[in-house]
Order: sequence, then C-alpha cells, then structure tokens
Amino acid sequence: MAERTSVEQHAARVEALLAGVLSLGSEQIALDGALGRVTAGPILSPVDLPLFRNSQMDGFAVRAIDVSTVPATLPVVGQIPARASQPNPLQPGTAVKIMTGAPVPLGADAVVPVEDTGAATGEPERASVTIVRSRVAGEYVRERGSDLRAGAQLLPGGLILAPRHLAALAAAGLAGLEVRSRVRVAIVTTGTELVAPGTAPQPGQTFDSNAAALIALVTEAGATVTFRAHVMDDAAQLVATLHEARLVADFTITSGGISMGDYEVVREVLEDRASSAPAGPIVDATVGTIAMQPGGPQATAIFDGMPLICFPGNPVSTQISFAVFLAPLLRRAAGLHARTTSERTLTVPVTSFAGRRQFLRGCAVGDTEVEPVAAPGSHLVAGMASADLMIDIPTATTDLEAGESVVTWAL
Amino acid sequence: MAERTSVEQHAARVEALLAGVLSLGSEQIALDGALGRVTAGPILSPVDLPLFRNSQMDGFAVRAIDVSTVPATLPVVGQIPARASQPNPLQPGTAVKIMTGAPVPLGADAVVPVEDTGAATGEPERASVTIVRSRVAGEYVRERGSDLRAGAQLLPGGLILAPRHLAALAAAGLAGLEVRSRVRVAIVTTGTELVAPGTAPQPGQTFDSNAAALIALVTEAGATVTFRAHVMDDAAQLVATLHEARLVADFTITSGGISMGDYEVVREVLEDRASSAPAGPIVDATVGTIAMQPGGPQATAIFDGMPLICFPGNPVSTQISFAVFLAPLLRRAAGLHARTTSERTLTVPVTSFAGRRQFLRGCAVGDTEVEPVAAPGSHLVAGMASADLMIDIPTATTDLEAGESVVTWAL
Repeated sequence: MAERTSVEQHAARVEALLAGVLSLGSEQIALDGALGRVTAGPILSPVDLPLFRNSQMDGFAVRAIDVSTVPATLPVVGQIPARASQPNPLQPGTAVKIMTGAPVPLGADAVVPVEDTGAATGEPERASVTIVRSRVAGEYVRERGSDLRAGAQLLPGGLILAPRHLAALAAAGLAGLEVRSRVRVAIVTTGTELVAPGTAPQPGQTFDSNAAALIALVTEAGATVTFRAHVMDDAAQLVATLHEARLVADFTITSGGISMGDYEVVREVLEDRASSAPAGPIVDATVGTIAMQPGGPQATAIFDGMPLICFPGNPVSTQISFAVFLAPLLRRAAGLHARTTSERTLTVPVTSFAGRRQFLRGCAVGDTEVEPVAAPGSHLVAGMASADLMIDIPTATTDLEAGESVVTWAL
Repeated sequence: MAERTSVEQHAARVEALLAGVLSLGSEQIALDGALGRVTAGPILSPVDLPLFRNSQMDGFAVRAIDVSTVPATLPVVGQIPARASQPNPLQPGTAVKIMTGAPVPLGADAVVPVEDTGAATGEPERASVTIVRSRVAGEYVRERGSDLRAGAQLLPGGLILAPRHLAALAAAGLAGLEVRSRVRVAIVTTGTELVAPGTAPQPGQTFDSNAAALIALVTEAGATVTFRAHVMDDAAQLVATLHEARLVADFTITSGGISMGDYEVVREVLEDRASSAPAGPIVDATVGTIAMQPGGPQATAIFDGMPLICFPGNPVSTQISFAVFLAPLLRRAAGLHARTTSERTLTVPVTSFAGRRQFLRGCAVGDTEVEPVAAPGSHLVAGMASADLMIDIPTATTDLEAGESVVTWAL
C-alpha cells in the first residue's frame, strides 16, 4: 500500500484551497448586533471623551483659590443641570450649583461635592453656600478629552467585541462599526439512508446528525451558514445542489459519500465517473484516505471556482475532521482565539494504529489528567457528546501507558 | 456619617430581590437555535444508538468461522446498500456485499473490509469473493445500542450545548429539546442630557453608552433583553415606562438618576416624592450609597411586583455594578460558568479609599501580573474598554505596593 497522505499534508491542502476565501473583507453593522464580532481595523474616536469639560459630582463649581480657607461662604449665582448647554463664565468669589455631568463654567476650576457644604440635596434655590472642605484646582472636574482625544485609537483592530467595547463606541457617538465579514459556508450532507431528526425512520434508515453538527460547528468557529441541503446518492442532484450553493457561499462542506462503497456520490462527482449526469465543472479533485483515525477518507476539489471540502459521513469522523482541518482556519479568519491545546497524562493505557494519527475522545480529570471516553468507533456519537477533549495520538505511536503525556485539544 | 452598606450586603439584597425571578422554568426549542443554550434536565435517548446492527465498513458480511482460514473463497449471494431495509439472513458458507451503515444480516457476525478481499470498489456484481485476512466475530459490526441504549442518558441536565451535543440529539432523532428559559430583562436608561449614538449632540449633551453596555452585558450573561427605553428626567414618564416593562420582563435594570443631584428621576420615583406624577406602586425601596467605588449610589425596589435594580449612571459605574451584582446571579441562573477570579501581583503601587471596596480596571501582564489601566474615574469609558480585568481592592486597604497580591475578576 502506498504511504498515506499525512494529516499535516491534508491540512496544508485544505488551507491552500481556502486561502482565497478566508482573506475576508469587512462590513458595516449596528452596535446592537456587534457583540462577539471582530473589529475590521483600529477605530479612532471621532470626538473628545468626555465631549466637554464637566462635573464629576453634584455640588458647587468654584475657583479653588476661593475655598482655600474654610469655612468659606460664597454667593450662589445660579445652577447648572446636567442637561444645560454651555453656562456663563463664573465670576471670582462666587459659586454655581452644578450637577454630575453638567458643563463646568469657564473660570471655575474645582467642584465641591454637596456633602462638603451646608447645602442639601433637592432643596430650593439658595442665595449662598458655606463650604467646609477645601478643594485644589482640578478636583472633580473632568477635562474634555481626558479619557480619550478625538482621533486617538478607541479600539484596536482584530478585537472581539465585548460589552465594554460597545459602551466605548456608543460613548463616542458611533451607532455602528466596520467588522470582519463572516465566511459564508454551505453545508451539504449526503446519503440516501439518512432522514431528518423528528421524522420516523424506516428500517435501515438513520438520523442525519451531521447537518446539526456542521451548522453549529461553523457558527461556533465564527463563520455563517448561508446554505444547507441534504442530497440522496444521486450525482445529478449533488451537482445541481452545488451549483445553488455556489451562488451564496464562499465554500461548501460535504459529509459522506467519499469512502470505498459502491454508492459514494461525492466521490462519483469528484472523479467525474457519474454515468447518469454531467459531473459538473470539477477541477483539482483529490479523493483518498489519509493517515488519520477517525476521518481517514477525505476529499477536496474546486467546483466551478468554489472550494469543496469533503468529509466522511460517520458522525464522529465529520466532527473530528472539522476540528482538525477547518476550525483552526475559520477561527483564525474570524479573529477568534485558537482552541487551546494542553499536555495531560493518561489515566489508563491506550493503544493506537501504527501509521495513523488517532484522535480519541477524552474527558479532563482535574487540571493535569485525561481519561479516554467511548471507544474509537467513528459512529459513537453519544460517546463523542460525553467528551470535552480530543486526545491526539501521534502517527507512529501504538501503545501508551497510564501516566504518559499526550497532547489534548479542547473541544 | 453612618457606616455605608457593604458590597456584600447590597449583593445579598439584590440576590434576595431577584430570587423569585431567577428560578426559571424551561422551554422547548429547535436544535437550530440551541447552540449555547442549557439543558433543562437530563435528556434520555428515545432510541438505541445505533438504531440497528450495521456495518462499520464497506466490504463483505460473513460468518467469522468461515474466514478463519485464508484465503477463503465464498459465493456472494447479494448486496446490501446503506439504504437497505432488513436483509435476509446469511446462510453459512456465503458472503454478502455490504456498505458502511447498512444492516448486517442475521447469521453474519463479522464484516471483512473490501481492502482485505480480491474485490474492488465500484465493480459489477461478482459471483464469489476471495478473502485474504481473517476476522473474528464482532469485527466491524456495530451492535444495536452499543453507543447508547434507549432510555439511557444522552445528555445531562445543566449542560451548555456545544455542537457535539446537538449532533447526539439529532442522531437520536430529536429535532428539539427542553432548555432553561432565559431571564427576561428590561433596560431603562435615564437622563435628559443623554442622546443616542448616531445623533448630533447639542452642547451639554452626552451620548448614552449604558443602553449598549447593558444590552450586551445581559445577553452575555445568558439572559435576554425584552424591553428597552430611555427616559428623560420626568417621573411620570419613568413610571409609565416601568408599567410597560412589567408586562414583558422579569425585572428591570435602570441606570442613572439615583445620586445626590436635584434631578434624580429614579430616586424621585423610589422615594415617592415626585410632585408631578403618582410615583407608582413602589414598595421596599432602598436608595443609598454603598461602600464601593465606582458604583457608590445604588438602589433597589419592587415596582408593582417587578424587581427594580437601579445602577448609577456613570458608564463605568454601570458596567462595574453589573459585573459585581448581576452577572454572577444571571450566569448562575442561566447555567453558565462563573467568571473566573484569580490572584495576581500588581506591577505598580495603587492607592484606594479607606472604607470603600474599589474595583480598578486592569490588564493582565503574562500569567501572574496585573497592571492598572486608566484612572479610577467612573466616566472613563474608553479606559474601561482597554481593560480585561477588574482589580478588587478590599474595603480596608488604602495602599498596595508593586508585587503585592490582589484578586482580579475576568471581564
């Protein structure tokens, strides 16, 4: 048997195939939908923050020099609510009542909080105020631009937007922003034997779990599913479906139909051996078995200019294939953090196939150990659901003892 | 001055006030919208997984005993595609061609992969097959229920749904599931001086950043915003708005209007001292200043049966108040993991107020240090955006040296 393509070689092939569609543009969106999106580039503040010089406290705006000796009684010449426009300049030796956020008049250089005066909250207008605590120039005055100057960077590019970032954008008056576009992905599951969840299977039929898995995986990786379809083992139907997908998606993921059986619809189209239908404008097809378990059968092609990434149909194979070949690329394109990998020690011995890089399912035990869960079978979809890690067993390794170290990938 | 209410006392008050609305019910949703939602209870599989005994490989179903000596040539009595219903039992001494996922006939107890025979993929029907490698009973046969038995637990309760969980639900034929309901939250920002981002502020006006922050914070904490409004410094408008909110929300968060100024609309309504309007059916109002910076002014009440959590209006105060008082409760109610806290050492000295628990903004430096960013001012919304941690300075602490340890909260 010829040496199989390695996981690394296939990953490189997938990356090369998608290079053109992962270099994303950007789009303008409203703040309301921006949580978790990624800034397309640095965002400069269009305004000074604060917009104007304003009071940090409810109290009295004064000249600090006029309250350097206390108690000091000053005439109150008016009041400035937070909703005031620019007030008149303050004359020396006077005070003006001021609310938090209200513009501080020219001439005033400090605010004395109401707690440090003889005044009370909510009282009627008063002719004078007695100040009992000195304040130095600048105290409780928020200078215009003291948080950020107009033209300075409000947010960096490549930032995953959290609530505090949306608050800063709003504070600068921005109702929307430029974020990285999401990669548009089509999901095409194949197999005449599959039926949708929620329906009643006939004998020999199985529920399609790959549609649900791939839609969620694509979404979680920061891309967006713009097309989904299930096709039977019918090359003409698959070709027609890919033509549709091409109109709305940057690339298509298929599941199933690429292994060694007689009814392998994706393989048929990729190898242009469909007897019943023109196979479509396929170029650069690769269909083969790579040195990986689960997920051995893998294929790629370009269909009328659109990349096709073709995964095997066993549910665990599909999910692991996505985690290994697509999640890293899509997350990077979306500006999301890479999934963490960590070294852990095995709680029990494991065996693996020589010549295949095996991805077992495991559960974290404490901070440093990992326990394999479920058997290696690629149909064990409930077993997969109980895992939180993938255990990455190198290609050449066949036996590992309990206590030996392995690399694990967070799922 | 009387001793201020502590952060812990106010947190307990908020928790008690919300106890009734955070004990959530559940709702049935479709798989498509279930990513990130939380299972309401354990989910049992309604079916055996796999649904039926099926082949793990493309190859030939045989009796293992018939291939115990190889090469062995057996007559091929038919073929079973993956879409087949239950096939006829296999007679001893014969083989049947079988595809991955197809039902294994009674009588057969092993599958020999096509690679281990003289047959080839996609060839015409053949009369016999020569098998070159022995297989033991059970090999490449997936027994019905070997992944999970009908009635056994497919997913535990309280699970945050990831793609692999949705795949398992789909595989078991479930098109939807029962998840925890989201807490419904109303957001009411107050202040005549505030204008919406995207509009042109008049002199003395400031952009409202609290609506954007609170909507995103509530969403991120696993709850849902079902009502939002901005009200002027007008008690009648606030009361009317709270009546509307009560119809669609479990509780309301307000921002602004509770400090020491003369135009404190929330305080007015809570203290029932509105002159221009009936203050509404307020009970159990608390309005005061707690031993916290930022976020000193805090209030709570019950409005016609609906809890009100009232935060101060300075943007940083609002965000920190949410992080301290609401995020932990909402995340727990939603079944989300608590935000992590960690001990880190300060890169520089910091000072704090005696008698206030201070929450500074900081950035992680490596794995073990934290550097304060921005000043403590509660208006520094751009500074807040540049932080990734809150630094929690205990109430009694006034001075910390560089290298001293502090508790930090992930933002």
